[in-house]
Amino acid sequence: RQQAAMAASEEDEAEKKEEEELRQRFMAPPVSGLRELRRRRRELRSRMELLIMETQGEVCRALAALDPGASFAVDTWERKEGGGGISCVLQDGDVFEKAGVNVSVVSGLLSEEAARQMRSRGKSLKAKDGKLPFCAMGVSSVIHPKNPHVPTMHFNYRYFEIEEADGTKQWWFGGGTDLTPTYLNEEDAIHFHKTLKEACDKHDLKLYPKYKKWCDDYFYIKHRGERRGIGGIFFDDMDSPSKEEVFQFVKSCAKAVVPCYIPIVKRHCHDSFTPEEKLWQQLRRGRYVEFNLVYDRGTKFGLLTPGSRIESILMSLPLTARWEYMHTPPESSKEAEILEVLRNPKDWVH
Amino acid sequence: RQQAAMAASEEDEAEKKEEEELRQRFMAPPVSGLRELRRRRRELRSRMELLIMETQGEVCRALAALDPGASFAVDTWERKEGGGGISCVLQDGDVFEKAGVNVSVVSGLLSEEAARQMRSRGKSLKAKDGKLPFCAMGVSSVIHPKNPHVPTMHFNYRYFEIEEADGTKQWWFGGGTDLTPTYLNEEDAIHFHKTLKEACDKHDLKLYPKYKKWCDDYFYIKHRGERRGIGGIFFDDMDSPSKEEVFQFVKSCAKAVVPCYIPIVKRHCHDSFTPEEKLWQQLRRGRYVEFNLVYDRGTKFGLLTPGSRIESILMSLPLTARWEYMHTPPESSKEAEILEVLRNPKDWVH
Repeated sequence: RQQAAMAASEEDEAEKKEEEELRQRFMAPPVSGLRELRRRRRELRSRMELLIMETQGEVCRALAALDPGASFAVDTWERKEGGGGISCVLQDGDVFEKAGVNVSVVSGLLSEEAARQMRSRGKSLKAKDGKLPFCAMGVSSVIHPKNPHVPTMHFNYRYFEIEEADGTKQWWFGGGTDLTPTYLNEEDAIHFHKTLKEACDKHDLKLYPKYKKWCDDYFYIKHRGERRGIGGIFFDDMDSPSKEEVFQFVKSCAKAVVPCYIPIVKRHCHDSFTPEEKLWQQLRRGRYVEFNLVYDRGTKFGLLTPGSRIESILMSLPLTARWEYMHTPPESSKEAEILEVLRNPKDWVH
Repeated sequence: RQQAAMAASEEDEAEKKEEEELRQRFMAPPVSGLRELRRRRRELRSRMELLIMETQGEVCRALAALDPGASFAVDTWERKEGGGGISCVLQDGDVFEKAGVNVSVVSGLLSEEAARQMRSRGKSLKAKDGKLPFCAMGVSSVIHPKNPHVPTMHFNYRYFEIEEADGTKQWWFGGGTDLTPTYLNEEDAIHFHKTLKEACDKHDLKLYPKYKKWCDDYFYIKHRGERRGIGGIFFDDMDSPSKEEVFQFVKSCAKAVVPCYIPIVKRHCHDSFTPEEKLWQQLRRGRYVEFNLVYDRGTKFGLLTPGSRIESILMSLPLTARWEYMHTPPESSKEAEILEVLRNPKDWVH
């Protein structure tokens, strides 16, 4: 009995220590609470929530280390319809113009419009009295640096569950990481894509080529005939081979964010630049806004979801953007070079 | 016979003189050609095209007179699917940051998506082999001044015809004029609304109240719970009491643009302003972008119409805009004052 008690207290100790460690690694207490997450630690929802919290912490720390003068503001918020989130934003730093890393864990009933949007992409959702209970969680982030030689980076990893009328649960993962440079740097492009490919290849050699193409197709600004950036990976509705295997894949992708991006920031954040280069960056920021407000599914879904936190959704917009009528860069310029790649995406790794 | 010949030559003279006058008043030759417009001068389509050309000229001249250092670039463009337009843009002047006045006269077959969008607002459009020949023309304009004490102004007047399977033509007019100040100035708001009300009242006393409310409802940024500006008038699908009467109403509205806006620009274009006021203007510009890209029907319709001229559609976007995470003006500030009116629209004239 004494031995059992000792074992229990040791277990308590270990738990407390682990909890303390998590607390230090996370930007704020998780939405579902540490205790609750521990209680149902074997459930995928809990493991995913821990993963997105961990990713938020990792990315924020890596960014903050590069911009010592600034720091992340951390806002935790609740959604009255269920759930909440943690938004971390660093604004107007020396290196970053606006860097946001957002975690949200929300649940409730799908709005009519959100359900319609999902059905329009092929989901058959049988509602009970028109009601569709859902649970959605994810980490999403957009990093807009000041220096035009440091590209903007976006990533998002999410998990979705919907309960249908007959009680069956539909679930899927989605996500991706992609890069939006103002100027093309081939070395950076190769490093970025190679790091993503390595993360994918550990799971299935088919994933990188498939999700690279999906990314080029998804981030397409149709009315401009341009992609938003030089891509990366993008996927949605991923529900095979198994929950566990998809989760492991998503985990690898999330772990790849820092090694994809941070070396590129370090390499260029002290590059000198001209006012003309800054201007071109601002025009590209305008395109970023166009994509996000006109096409981005996540943004649209957010704006349609009642009670969603607008400031966290629109955190993805740059601090400043510019639109000039009929701006066309001269032929063979550095500006024309990146446009060419945005119009005709390239393969960066084989 | 000599008399007849003399009369004919006098008529020729008069025609030439009239043509010359129109040429001077227009920014460019009309899309349909002056000769063609004269030939079918009794048709409403021709009279509307002359009206929008006249309006473009009037507004451009009035704006240019206030910004003598800058001038309008005039681009005429063709749409390979049919029709074309004339875009006049003054960019980076002393008074105006970006002022665009665009005329377009296009025809062709309605795209699937555009037809769907129209049906979704209650139009029953019976297509012949899935094809819907249409003709659309309009003048539209957005004026973004530099000084934060001069409001942004938008107007648009348009005419639409669709030919259905059985050969019957649906037609309607739409349009409106509205003001988006950075700071509230009650005197300006009253002048603007009063001028619009007077234009409406000449036709029907019911029009101003109805279209004032429609404007407040239409320019609603749902996710912000704010209107884009302090309104004006807005209407669509106007097809009664008769083509002629609606045209006369639209003409009165178009003629009211200059007297609505120009006195306000004159009154404030030399007002002094602080960097903080300029910053607030930039944040409001961000909201303008949000409305136009997320909600505006004209913009969406344009982006969906194949072969439409993107630069002319997105001319409405400001030169620069800004998004700050969680920006909230202090209570009782001038910034909070305008927000209050954007959240709860006021009646400016009775």
